[in-house]
Amino acid sequence: MELSGVQALTFDVFGTVTDWRRTIIREGEALAQRKGLVVDWPAFALAWRAGYQPAMQRVRTGELPWMTIDELHRLILEDLLSQFEITGLSEPEKDDLNRVWHRLDPWPDARVGLARLRRSFTVATLSNGNMALLTNLAKHTDLRWDCILSAELAHHYKPDAEVYGMAVSLLGLQPHEVMMVAAHNSDLRGAKAVGLRTAFVCRPQEYGHGQTTDLEPESSWELVAHDFLDLAEQLLGS
Amino acid sequence: MELSGVQALTFDVFGTVTDWRRTIIREGEALAQRKGLVVDWPAFALAWRAGYQPAMQRVRTGELPWMTIDELHRLILEDLLSQFEITGLSEPEKDDLNRVWHRLDPWPDARVGLARLRRSFTVATLSNGNMALLTNLAKHTDLRWDCILSAELAHHYKPDAEVYGMAVSLLGLQPHEVMMVAAHNSDLRGAKAVGLRTAFVCRPQEYGHGQTTDLEPESSWELVAHDFLDLAEQLLGS
Repeated sequence: MELSGVQALTFDVFGTVTDWRRTIIREGEALAQRKGLVVDWPAFALAWRAGYQPAMQRVRTGELPWMTIDELHRLILEDLLSQFEITGLSEPEKDDLNRVWHRLDPWPDARVGLARLRRSFTVATLSNGNMALLTNLAKHTDLRWDCILSAELAHHYKPDAEVYGMAVSLLGLQPHEVMMVAAHNSDLRGAKAVGLRTAFVCRPQEYGHGQTTDLEPESSWELVAHDFLDLAEQLLGS
Repeated sequence: MELSGVQALTFDVFGTVTDWRRTIIREGEALAQRKGLVVDWPAFALAWRAGYQPAMQRVRTGELPWMTIDELHRLILEDLLSQFEITGLSEPEKDDLNRVWHRLDPWPDARVGLARLRRSFTVATLSNGNMALLTNLAKHTDLRWDCILSAELAHHYKPDAEVYGMAVSLLGLQPHEVMMVAAHNSDLRGAKAVGLRTAFVCRPQEYGHGQTTDLEPESSWELVAHDFLDLAEQLLGS
Protein backbone atom coordinates (compact mmCIF):
# COMPACT_ATOMS: atom_id res chain seq x y z
CA MET A 1 0.00 0.00 0.00
CA GLU A 2 1.40 3.41 -0.95
CA LEU A 3 0.56 4.92 2.41
CA SER A 4 3.99 5.42 3.93
CA GLY A 5 3.84 9.20 3.56
CA VAL A 6 0.51 9.69 5.33
CA GLN A 7 0.94 11.93 8.37
CA ALA A 8 -2.59 13.06 9.13
CA LEU A 9 -6.03 11.48 9.03
CA THR A 10 -9.05 13.73 8.56
CA PHE A 11 -12.41 12.30 9.55
CA ASP A 12 -15.90 12.90 8.39
CA VAL A 13 -18.03 13.07 11.53
CA PHE A 14 -21.80 12.71 10.88
CA GLY A 15 -22.22 9.02 10.14
CA THR A 16 -18.53 8.12 10.08
CA VAL A 17 -17.65 8.86 13.71
CA THR A 18 -21.10 9.33 15.19
CA ASP A 19 -24.50 7.65 14.99
CA TRP A 20 -26.78 10.65 14.41
CA ARG A 21 -29.86 8.52 13.68
CA ARG A 22 -30.10 6.64 16.94
CA THR A 23 -29.18 9.68 19.01
CA ILE A 24 -31.96 11.75 17.45
CA ILE A 25 -34.47 8.92 17.97
CA ARG A 26 -33.48 8.51 21.63
CA GLU A 27 -33.52 12.23 22.42
CA GLY A 28 -36.74 12.67 20.46
CA GLU A 29 -38.45 9.92 22.41
CA ALA A 30 -37.38 11.50 25.69
CA LEU A 31 -38.68 14.88 24.53
CA ALA A 32 -41.97 13.31 23.41
CA GLN A 33 -42.43 11.71 26.81
CA ARG A 34 -41.80 15.02 28.60
CA LYS A 35 -44.11 16.97 26.30
CA GLY A 36 -46.80 14.36 25.63
CA LEU A 37 -46.05 14.17 21.89
CA VAL A 38 -46.60 11.30 19.49
CA VAL A 39 -43.98 11.40 16.73
CA ASP A 40 -42.43 8.83 14.38
CA TRP A 41 -38.87 9.61 15.47
CA PRO A 42 -37.10 7.19 13.11
CA ALA A 43 -38.84 8.95 10.22
CA PHE A 44 -38.11 12.33 11.79
CA ALA A 45 -34.38 11.55 12.07
CA LEU A 46 -34.16 10.45 8.44
CA ALA A 47 -36.10 13.52 7.29
CA TRP A 48 -33.81 15.85 9.21
CA ARG A 49 -30.77 14.30 7.62
CA ALA A 50 -32.44 14.25 4.20
CA GLY A 51 -32.82 18.02 4.41
CA TYR A 52 -29.10 18.47 4.83
CA GLN A 53 -27.80 18.07 1.26
CA PRO A 54 -30.50 20.33 -0.28
CA ALA A 55 -29.82 22.99 2.41
CA MET A 56 -26.08 22.96 1.67
CA GLN A 57 -26.88 23.12 -2.02
CA ARG A 58 -28.84 26.35 -1.41
CA VAL A 59 -25.68 27.82 0.16
CA ARG A 60 -23.51 26.44 -2.65
CA THR A 61 -25.62 28.08 -5.34
CA GLY A 62 -25.76 31.39 -3.49
CA GLU A 63 -29.51 31.20 -2.89
CA LEU A 64 -28.62 31.41 0.81
CA PRO A 65 -25.65 33.36 2.18
CA TRP A 66 -23.01 31.38 4.10
CA MET A 67 -24.78 29.68 6.98
CA THR A 68 -23.42 27.23 9.51
CA ILE A 69 -24.78 23.72 9.86
CA ASP A 70 -26.36 24.80 13.16
CA GLU A 71 -28.32 27.41 11.21
CA LEU A 72 -29.18 25.00 8.39
CA HIS A 73 -30.28 22.33 10.88
CA ARG A 74 -32.54 24.91 12.46
CA LEU A 75 -34.07 25.91 9.10
CA ILE A 76 -34.82 22.26 8.35
CA LEU A 77 -36.12 21.70 11.88
CA GLU A 78 -38.72 24.46 11.50
CA ASP A 79 -40.15 22.67 8.46
CA LEU A 80 -40.10 19.31 10.23
CA LEU A 81 -41.90 20.60 13.30
CA SER A 82 -44.72 21.66 11.04
CA GLN A 83 -44.60 18.51 8.87
CA PHE A 84 -44.62 16.17 11.89
CA GLU A 85 -47.21 18.34 13.67
CA ILE A 86 -45.01 18.93 16.68
CA THR A 87 -46.40 21.88 18.60
CA GLY A 88 -45.93 23.43 22.01
CA LEU A 89 -42.13 23.70 21.98
CA SER A 90 -40.68 26.91 23.41
CA GLU A 91 -37.75 28.65 21.70
CA PRO A 92 -35.27 27.22 24.25
CA GLU A 93 -36.75 23.75 23.68
CA LYS A 94 -36.36 24.10 19.91
CA ASP A 95 -32.78 25.33 20.38
CA ASP A 96 -32.04 22.41 22.63
CA LEU A 97 -33.49 19.95 20.13
CA ASN A 98 -31.43 21.55 17.38
CA ARG A 99 -28.32 21.04 19.48
CA VAL A 100 -28.84 17.27 19.56
CA TRP A 101 -26.20 17.38 16.78
CA HIS A 102 -23.72 18.57 19.44
CA ARG A 103 -24.50 15.50 21.55
CA LEU A 104 -24.33 12.61 19.10
CA ASP A 105 -23.20 9.19 20.28
CA PRO A 106 -19.97 7.89 18.79
CA TRP A 107 -20.00 4.47 17.13
CA PRO A 108 -18.76 1.90 19.66
CA ASP A 109 -15.34 1.51 17.98
CA ALA A 110 -14.66 5.23 17.54
CA ARG A 111 -12.94 6.14 20.80
CA VAL A 112 -10.56 3.20 21.01
CA GLY A 113 -9.80 3.26 17.30
CA LEU A 114 -9.05 6.97 17.28
CA ALA A 115 -6.85 6.70 20.35
CA ARG A 116 -4.77 4.03 18.62
CA LEU A 117 -4.50 6.03 15.42
CA ARG A 118 -3.57 9.17 17.32
CA ARG A 119 -0.33 7.59 18.52
CA SER A 120 1.03 7.51 14.97
CA PHE A 121 -0.94 10.16 13.09
CA THR A 122 -2.35 13.62 13.53
CA VAL A 123 -6.09 13.02 13.75
CA ALA A 124 -8.49 15.83 12.86
CA THR A 125 -12.14 16.23 12.08
CA LEU A 126 -13.02 17.44 8.61
CA SER A 127 -16.75 17.86 8.80
CA ASN A 128 -19.44 20.11 7.42
CA GLY A 129 -20.41 20.69 11.05
CA ASN A 130 -19.38 24.10 12.33
CA MET A 131 -16.47 24.57 14.73
CA ALA A 132 -18.65 25.10 17.83
CA LEU A 133 -20.72 22.01 17.05
CA LEU A 134 -17.61 19.87 16.51
CA THR A 135 -15.90 21.24 19.61
CA ASN A 136 -18.96 20.55 21.77
CA LEU A 137 -19.33 17.11 20.19
CA ALA A 138 -15.69 16.24 20.93
CA LYS A 139 -16.24 17.21 24.56
CA HIS A 140 -19.51 15.28 24.75
CA THR A 141 -18.09 12.10 23.22
CA ASP A 142 -14.71 12.44 24.98
CA LEU A 143 -13.04 11.88 21.62
CA ARG A 144 -9.55 13.32 21.52
CA TRP A 145 -8.74 15.12 18.27
CA ASP A 146 -5.43 16.80 17.60
CA CYS A 147 -7.35 19.58 15.95
CA ILE A 148 -10.86 20.40 14.87
CA LEU A 149 -11.21 21.35 11.22
CA SER A 150 -14.51 22.33 9.69
CA ALA A 151 -15.95 23.33 6.34
CA GLU A 152 -16.86 26.54 8.17
CA LEU A 153 -13.21 27.62 7.91
CA ALA A 154 -13.42 27.50 4.11
CA HIS A 155 -16.98 28.85 3.81
CA HIS A 156 -17.60 25.94 1.47
CA TYR A 157 -19.27 22.60 2.10
CA LYS A 158 -17.83 19.18 1.30
CA PRO A 159 -17.40 17.78 -1.25
CA ASP A 160 -16.26 21.16 -2.63
CA ALA A 161 -12.52 21.06 -3.31
CA GLU A 162 -11.90 24.15 -1.17
CA VAL A 163 -12.63 22.25 2.04
CA TYR A 164 -10.03 19.54 1.48
CA GLY A 165 -7.49 22.08 0.21
CA MET A 166 -8.01 24.20 3.31
CA ALA A 167 -7.41 21.20 5.58
CA VAL A 168 -4.19 20.23 3.81
CA SER A 169 -2.94 23.80 3.99
CA LEU A 170 -3.81 24.31 7.68
CA LEU A 171 -2.13 21.02 8.56
CA GLY A 172 1.01 22.26 6.80
CA LEU A 173 1.14 19.14 4.65
CA GLN A 174 0.94 18.02 1.04
CA PRO A 175 -2.30 16.40 -0.22
CA HIS A 176 -0.77 12.91 -0.42
CA GLU A 177 0.26 13.20 3.24
CA VAL A 178 -3.39 13.47 4.33
CA MET A 179 -5.90 10.64 4.30
CA MET A 180 -9.63 11.36 4.33
CA VAL A 181 -11.64 8.82 6.32
CA ALA A 182 -15.35 8.68 5.54
CA ALA A 183 -18.35 6.38 5.35
CA HIS A 184 -19.53 8.23 2.24
CA ASN A 185 -18.18 7.61 -1.24
CA SER A 186 -19.02 11.16 -2.35
CA ASP A 187 -16.81 12.63 0.37
CA LEU A 188 -13.90 10.41 -0.69
CA ARG A 189 -14.41 11.35 -4.34
CA GLY A 190 -14.08 15.01 -3.33
CA ALA A 191 -10.95 14.31 -1.31
CA LYS A 192 -9.34 12.20 -4.02
CA ALA A 193 -9.92 14.92 -6.62
CA VAL A 194 -7.66 17.18 -4.53
CA GLY A 195 -5.00 14.48 -4.16
CA LEU A 196 -5.71 13.20 -0.66
CA ARG A 197 -5.48 9.52 0.21
CA THR A 198 -8.80 7.92 0.98
CA ALA A 199 -10.15 5.36 3.44
CA PHE A 200 -13.71 4.06 3.29
CA VAL A 201 -15.14 2.90 6.61
CA CYS A 202 -18.44 1.17 6.04
CA ARG A 203 -21.30 2.16 8.36
CA PRO A 204 -24.15 -0.02 7.11
CA GLN A 205 -26.44 1.01 9.99
CA GLU A 206 -26.07 4.76 9.54
CA TYR A 207 -29.55 4.99 7.99
CA GLY A 208 -30.92 1.95 9.84
CA HIS A 209 -31.84 -1.46 8.51
CA GLY A 210 -33.14 -0.20 5.20
CA GLN A 211 -29.89 1.49 4.17
CA THR A 212 -29.24 1.25 0.43
CA THR A 213 -26.32 3.66 -0.07
CA ASP A 214 -22.63 3.53 0.82
CA LEU A 215 -22.76 -0.18 1.59
CA GLU A 216 -19.71 -0.75 -0.62
CA PRO A 217 -16.68 1.21 -1.77
CA GLU A 218 -17.53 2.67 -5.18
CA SER A 219 -13.98 3.33 -6.29
CA SER A 220 -10.49 2.05 -5.59
CA TRP A 221 -9.99 3.87 -2.30
CA GLU A 222 -6.55 3.19 -0.81
CA LEU A 223 -8.10 1.50 2.18
CA VAL A 224 -11.43 -0.09 3.07
CA ALA A 225 -12.23 -0.91 6.69
CA HIS A 226 -15.28 -2.14 8.54
CA ASP A 227 -14.65 0.08 11.57
CA PHE A 228 -11.96 2.22 13.24
CA LEU A 229 -10.31 -0.76 14.93
CA ASP A 230 -9.90 -2.39 11.55
CA LEU A 231 -8.64 0.92 10.15
CA ALA A 232 -6.05 1.14 12.93
CA GLU A 233 -4.98 -2.44 12.37
CA GLN A 234 -4.54 -1.90 8.65
CA LEU A 235 -2.64 1.35 9.09
CA LEU A 236 -0.51 0.39 12.07
CA GLY A 237 -0.16 -3.34 11.63
CA SER A 238 -1.36 -5.79 14.22
CA MET B 1 -16.37 38.53 40.16
CA GLU B 2 -18.63 38.88 37.13
CA LEU B 3 -17.43 35.68 35.55
CA SER B 4 -20.45 33.45 35.86
CA GLY B 5 -21.18 33.58 32.13
CA VAL B 6 -17.72 32.51 30.98
CA GLN B 7 -17.92 29.29 28.96
CA ALA B 8 -14.64 29.21 27.09
CA LEU B 9 -11.05 30.14 27.87
CA THR B 10 -8.75 31.07 25.00
CA PHE B 11 -5.02 30.89 25.69
CA ASP B 12 -2.08 32.72 24.29
CA VAL B 13 0.60 30.08 23.74
CA PHE B 14 4.13 31.53 23.26
CA GLY B 15 5.14 32.59 26.75
CA THR B 16 1.80 31.95 28.43
CA VAL B 17 1.60 28.17 28.00
CA THR B 18 5.12 27.41 26.81
CA ASP B 19 8.66 28.43 27.70
CA TRP B 20 10.07 29.26 24.26
CA ARG B 21 13.30 30.76 25.63
CA ARG B 22 14.63 27.76 27.50
CA THR B 23 13.56 25.34 24.78
CA ILE B 24 15.44 27.28 22.12
CA ILE B 25 18.53 27.49 24.32
CA ARG B 26 18.46 23.76 25.03
CA GLU B 27 17.91 22.73 21.43
CA GLY B 28 20.44 25.29 20.24
CA GLU B 29 23.09 23.92 22.57
CA ALA B 30 22.45 20.38 21.36
CA LEU B 31 22.73 21.54 17.75
CA ALA B 32 25.94 23.43 18.53
CA GLN B 33 27.45 20.34 20.06
CA ARG B 34 26.55 18.22 17.01
CA LYS B 35 27.85 20.80 14.54
CA GLY B 36 30.80 22.19 16.48
CA LEU B 37 29.32 25.71 16.73
CA VAL B 38 29.90 28.37 19.37
CA VAL B 39 26.79 30.52 19.78
CA ASP B 40 25.34 32.68 22.57
CA TRP B 41 22.03 30.80 22.62
CA PRO B 42 20.33 32.92 25.32
CA ALA B 43 20.98 35.98 23.16
CA PHE B 44 19.92 34.04 20.05
CA ALA B 45 16.60 33.05 21.64
CA LEU B 46 15.82 36.64 22.67
CA ALA B 47 16.80 37.95 19.24
CA TRP B 48 14.54 35.42 17.49
CA ARG B 49 11.61 36.44 19.66
CA ALA B 50 12.45 40.15 19.24
CA GLY B 51 12.09 39.77 15.49
CA TYR B 52 8.54 38.52 15.89
CA GLN B 53 6.60 41.77 16.46
CA PRO B 54 8.36 43.67 13.63
CA ALA B 55 7.76 40.73 11.26
CA MET B 56 4.03 40.67 12.07
CA GLN B 57 3.96 44.42 11.65
CA ARG B 58 5.27 44.00 8.09
CA VAL B 59 2.32 41.70 7.39
CA ARG B 60 -0.09 44.08 9.14
CA THR B 61 0.98 47.03 7.02
CA GLY B 62 0.84 45.01 3.80
CA GLU B 63 4.58 45.23 3.19
CA LEU B 64 4.50 41.42 3.27
CA PRO B 65 1.56 39.31 2.07
CA TRP B 66 -0.11 37.03 4.62
CA MET B 67 2.57 34.73 5.96
CA THR B 68 2.34 32.16 8.72
CA ILE B 69 4.45 32.34 11.84
CA ASP B 70 6.43 29.38 10.52
CA GLU B 71 7.32 31.49 7.51
CA LEU B 72 8.04 34.60 9.59
CA HIS B 73 10.19 32.59 12.01
CA ARG B 74 12.14 31.33 9.04
CA LEU B 75 12.65 34.86 7.65
CA ILE B 76 13.97 36.01 11.02
CA LEU B 77 16.10 32.88 11.37
CA GLU B 78 17.90 33.59 8.10
CA ASP B 79 18.96 36.99 9.45
CA LEU B 80 20.01 35.49 12.77
CA LEU B 81 22.12 32.77 11.19
CA SER B 82 24.09 35.49 9.49
CA GLN B 83 24.17 37.80 12.53
CA PHE B 84 25.33 35.02 14.88
CA GLU B 85 27.73 33.68 12.22
CA ILE B 86 26.17 30.24 12.21
CA THR B 87 27.30 28.43 9.08
CA GLY B 88 27.27 24.93 7.74
CA LEU B 89 23.60 24.14 8.32
CA SER B 90 21.85 22.22 5.55
CA GLU B 91 18.33 23.14 4.46
CA PRO B 92 16.82 20.24 6.46
CA GLU B 93 18.83 21.36 9.50
CA LYS B 94 17.56 24.93 9.16
CA ASP B 95 14.00 23.63 8.76
CA ASP B 96 14.40 21.49 11.83
CA LEU B 97 15.76 24.40 13.85
CA ASN B 98 12.85 26.56 12.67
CA ARG B 99 10.47 23.89 13.91
CA VAL B 100 11.76 24.19 17.47
CA TRP B 101 8.62 26.35 17.88
CA HIS B 102 6.59 23.15 17.32
CA ARG B 103 8.45 21.46 20.19
CA LEU B 104 8.35 24.03 23.00
CA ASP B 105 8.24 22.89 26.61
CA PRO B 106 5.11 23.78 28.55
CA TRP B 107 5.49 25.65 31.84
CA PRO B 108 5.41 23.10 34.68
CA ASP B 109 1.87 24.04 35.78
CA ALA B 110 0.35 24.07 32.29
CA ARG B 111 -0.76 20.47 31.84
CA VAL B 112 -2.38 19.98 35.24
CA GLY B 113 -3.93 23.44 35.28
CA LEU B 114 -5.42 23.04 31.80
CA ALA B 115 -6.79 19.59 32.63
CA ARG B 116 -8.59 21.05 35.65
CA LEU B 117 -9.97 23.98 33.69
CA ARG B 118 -11.09 21.70 30.86
CA ARG B 119 -13.59 19.97 33.15
CA SER B 120 -15.65 23.15 33.43
CA PHE B 121 -14.74 25.20 30.37
CA THR B 122 -14.02 24.83 26.71
CA VAL B 123 -10.27 25.43 26.46
CA ALA B 124 -8.78 26.61 23.18
CA THR B 125 -5.55 28.09 21.97
CA LEU B 126 -5.73 31.58 20.51
CA SER B 127 -2.22 32.14 19.29
CA ASN B 128 -0.43 33.88 16.47
CA GLY B 129 1.17 30.50 15.79
CA ASN B 130 -0.24 28.79 12.71
CA MET B 131 -2.58 25.82 12.95
CA ALA B 132 0.05 23.22 12.05
CA LEU B 133 2.50 24.63 14.58
CA LEU B 134 -0.13 24.65 17.34
CA THR B 135 -1.37 21.17 16.45
CA ASN B 136 2.16 19.75 16.50
CA LEU B 137 2.88 21.61 19.73
CA ALA B 138 -0.23 20.20 21.40
CA LYS B 139 0.87 16.71 20.43
CA HIS B 140 4.43 17.34 21.58
CA THR B 141 3.41 18.76 24.97
CA ASP B 142 0.51 16.31 25.41
CA LEU B 143 -1.70 19.28 26.26
CA ARG B 144 -5.35 18.54 25.59
CA TRP B 145 -7.20 21.42 23.96
CA ASP B 146 -10.86 21.26 23.03
CA CYS B 147 -9.97 23.09 19.86
CA ILE B 148 -7.03 24.80 18.26
CA LEU B 149 -7.69 28.37 17.16
CA SER B 150 -5.09 30.49 15.45
CA ALA B 151 -4.67 33.99 14.07
CA GLU B 152 -4.06 32.16 10.79
CA LEU B 153 -7.83 31.57 10.54
CA ALA B 154 -8.43 35.34 10.52
CA HIS B 155 -5.39 36.26 8.41
CA HIS B 156 -4.71 38.88 11.05
CA TYR B 157 -2.27 38.87 13.94
CA LYS B 158 -3.11 39.58 17.57
CA PRO B 159 -3.76 42.08 18.98
CA ASP B 160 -5.88 42.95 15.90
CA ALA B 161 -9.57 42.85 16.80
CA GLU B 162 -10.33 40.42 13.96
CA VAL B 163 -8.54 37.58 15.74
CA TYR B 164 -10.58 37.78 18.95
CA GLY B 165 -13.80 38.30 17.00
CA MET B 166 -13.07 35.22 14.89
CA ALA B 167 -12.53 33.11 18.00
CA VAL B 168 -15.77 34.23 19.62
CA SER B 169 -17.67 33.52 16.42
CA LEU B 170 -16.15 30.08 15.81
CA LEU B 171 -16.87 29.11 19.41
CA GLY B 172 -20.51 30.09 18.85
CA LEU B 173 -20.44 32.37 21.87
CA GLN B 174 -20.81 36.01 22.84
CA PRO B 175 -17.67 38.04 23.67
CA HIS B 176 -18.43 38.16 27.41
CA GLU B 177 -18.67 34.35 27.44
CA VAL B 178 -15.02 34.02 26.40
CA MET B 179 -12.01 34.78 28.61
CA MET B 180 -8.62 35.47 27.08
CA VAL B 181 -5.74 34.14 29.17
CA ALA B 182 -2.35 35.69 28.47
CA ALA B 183 0.94 36.66 30.05
CA HIS B 184 1.00 39.80 27.91
CA ASN B 185 -0.93 42.96 28.72
CA SER B 186 -1.10 43.98 25.05
CA ASP B 187 -2.91 40.75 24.18
CA LEU B 188 -5.45 41.35 26.94
CA ARG B 189 -5.97 44.94 25.83
CA GLY B 190 -6.82 43.63 22.35
CA ALA B 191 -9.22 41.05 23.77
CA LYS B 192 -10.89 43.51 26.11
CA ALA B 193 -11.48 45.97 23.27
CA VAL B 194 -13.66 43.30 21.62
CA GLY B 195 -15.54 42.58 24.86
CA LEU B 196 -13.82 39.41 26.03
CA ARG B 197 -13.09 38.76 29.68
CA THR B 198 -9.42 38.83 30.55
CA ALA B 199 -7.06 36.89 32.80
CA PHE B 200 -3.44 37.85 33.28
CA VAL B 201 -1.10 35.00 34.18
CA CYS B 202 2.28 36.37 35.12
CA ARG B 203 5.29 34.62 33.59
CA PRO B 204 8.20 36.60 35.05
CA GLN B 205 10.80 34.19 33.63
CA GLU B 206 9.57 34.29 30.04
CA TYR B 207 12.50 36.50 29.02
CA GLY B 208 14.84 35.19 31.71
CA HIS B 209 16.13 36.94 34.80
CA GLY B 210 16.39 40.35 33.20
CA GLN B 211 12.71 40.55 32.24
CA THR B 212 11.32 44.08 32.53
CA THR B 213 7.93 43.79 30.81
CA ASP B 214 4.63 42.17 31.76
CA LEU B 215 5.71 41.71 35.37
CA GLU B 216 2.44 43.28 36.54
CA PRO B 217 -1.11 43.63 35.27
CA GLU B 218 -1.34 47.04 33.59
CA SER B 219 -5.12 47.31 33.69
CA SER B 220 -8.02 45.99 35.71
CA TRP B 221 -8.16 42.54 34.15
CA GLU B 222 -10.96 40.42 35.61
CA LEU B 223 -8.48 37.96 36.98
CA VAL B 224 -4.78 37.90 37.83
CA ALA B 225 -3.05 34.59 38.55
CA HIS B 226 0.53 33.50 39.13
CA ASP B 227 0.11 30.25 37.18
CA PHE B 228 -2.54 27.92 35.71
CA LEU B 229 -3.12 26.14 39.02
CA ASP B 230 -3.91 29.48 40.62
CA LEU B 231 -6.11 30.34 37.63
CA ALA B 232 -8.02 27.08 38.06
CA GLU B 233 -8.42 27.65 41.75
CA GLN B 234 -9.76 31.16 41.25
CA LEU B 235 -12.16 30.11 38.48
CA LEU B 236 -13.34 26.81 39.96
CA GLY B 237 -13.00 27.45 43.69
CA SER B 238 -10.79 25.33 45.85
